[in-house]
Amino acid sequence: MHPFTQLFSASVSALGEEQLITAIRRWLGPVSPRAPFGVGDDCAVLPARRGRQLITVDPVIYGRHFDDTVPPRAVGAKLLKRNLSDLAAMGGRPTAAVLALTLDARVSRAWLEQFYRGLAACARQHGVPIVGGDVAQADGLVAASLTLLGTAAGPRILTRTGARRGDALYVTGQLGGSRPSGHHYRFTPRLDEGAWLARQPAVRAMMDVSDGLAKDLRALTPRGAVAALDPAALPRRRGCSLAAALSDGEDYELVFALAAAADHARFAAAWQRAFPRTRLTRIGRWVAAHRLPADALDLSQFAGYEHLRANADRP
Amino acid sequence: MHPFTQLFSASVSALGEEQLITAIRRWLGPVSPRAPFGVGDDCAVLPARRGRQLITVDPVIYGRHFDDTVPPRAVGAKLLKRNLSDLAAMGGRPTAAVLALTLDARVSRAWLEQFYRGLAACARQHGVPIVGGDVAQADGLVAASLTLLGTAAGPRILTRTGARRGDALYVTGQLGGSRPSGHHYRFTPRLDEGAWLARQPAVRAMMDVSDGLAKDLRALTPRGAVAALDPAALPRRRGCSLAAALSDGEDYELVFALAAAADHARFAAAWQRAFPRTRLTRIGRWVAAHRLPADALDLSQFAGYEHLRANADRP
Repeated sequence: MHPFTQLFSASVSALGEEQLITAIRRWLGPVSPRAPFGVGDDCAVLPARRGRQLITVDPVIYGRHFDDTVPPRAVGAKLLKRNLSDLAAMGGRPTAAVLALTLDARVSRAWLEQFYRGLAACARQHGVPIVGGDVAQADGLVAASLTLLGTAAGPRILTRTGARRGDALYVTGQLGGSRPSGHHYRFTPRLDEGAWLARQPAVRAMMDVSDGLAKDLRALTPRGAVAALDPAALPRRRGCSLAAALSDGEDYELVFALAAAADHARFAAAWQRAFPRTRLTRIGRWVAAHRLPADALDLSQFAGYEHLRANADRP
Repeated sequence: MHPFTQLFSASVSALGEEQLITAIRRWLGPVSPRAPFGVGDDCAVLPARRGRQLITVDPVIYGRHFDDTVPPRAVGAKLLKRNLSDLAAMGGRPTAAVLALTLDARVSRAWLEQFYRGLAACARQHGVPIVGGDVAQADGLVAASLTLLGTAAGPRILTRTGARRGDALYVTGQLGGSRPSGHHYRFTPRLDEGAWLARQPAVRAMMDVSDGLAKDLRALTPRGAVAALDPAALPRRRGCSLAAALSDGEDYELVFALAAAADHARFAAAWQRAFPRTRLTRIGRWVAAHRLPADALDLSQFAGYEHLRANADRP
């Protein structure tokens, strides 16, 4: 569905600001709390929470994270899910979100309604109130940026730091081909898996794969080490080349380090019991930089998604 | 300063994503905490806080909230100050912020550096760590959306709800002419004043004036009442018409309700001691809807800033 309309009467600017905000609250339904706990005051008031919080921000932009082939409901859900994936990667649970929208005045009301209804359905499913927002205008643009707050699901927050040489590398799901397959908006954020992994002491570091494994892994790799991946082990989506699996991006899977000394068979069995439907693959380990085995992948030969290119071609 | 460059070598896309993020952290300096408490992991970890939190989100967009006449340092500061003004309006103090940037690949590095340095200086002044962010690309755009977290400065959060018929209306500073005078980026958010007002039991409701008093006041006005403003009392900026003072927007002043029964002279004296340099004006009171005095302003004749217009002309 194309987000723009030629008909003024069908556009958001025909609705006007006040009616648009009223409509947005109706579209959001029960995930939009009343002011001052939601939209309608200068700030939203969040209930007190014990413990540390997590915060992340990610956008969806027309021509970049979605196009006319993606249903607007799926765009709204994707916006929240991208942020939920970041939270999952630290073992977090969502608590609240705010949404900044930047729209061309010709965006169609029908498109926007479906976008919000998709966002609301996903927010309801994950128990995330949408507590605040802003609508601004910019020519030619349909962009939404969501800031998500969360809290640790258990006693531990898993960061990207902590992997050691010798640790094994695991990845959930499959990699590559996210755009052609529709995975980039159909994916399920790995919240339960992330929370479970943060409770396993042998899991030392974790992140989500969003720009392609080859690029993202650099952030997880300990100093002086290099990831030795087994090319045959890499869980590729059907029809994907090795390069696609390593570089496509938008996988929204979890990659983590399991201590070398851990009982891997027992770990795999526990995973299987907890998540019988989520594939988990051991894809390699970290070795000293000068000891990369001859049959391991040379990740430096693969690029990942670059966020600032002169000529963008995504999606 | 114009944000775009014709020279590829001077653009953000020449810098590339990784170097850009490194540069941003350098430009932010001490207001950018280390991961996981700042940029560099999937989420940022926020320290535990007692009590309720406040959250708000507001953008700055090229062609709308700034143009080539506004120095990029001032644009960065304005982005934070707009959000601080929302926090001030509830009697809050800032605790942390995240920033979502959407840029054309041709944005100049020099422009962006000044933008971030201006943001950093303002953040340092107000003790706001910039804990997270995202950089995305969109053609023709320079937009930044900031989500600000805060906490109540005292025991009470002041909302827009609570004014009653008979209450007096007060406004800080001067109204109108924000764009031609440069007030729209030079203003000081009324954080100290907002915190002080939230501690006065006789102050019943408050908000900041951002879309023009005529429009904004509707949100503060109790049901069945109407604001009776004295046109002669309205604090207009030099050279401003009454219509400009009521409709221009971007005033970033506080408007609040003081209980009719309060000792207004004593209140004004206390204000004068606390804020000798911030003008405070009693501009009217709320009356029953059918009892608007003949000499009071008819606010329904004035519009405010509309955020979604087919033909935008701001700034």
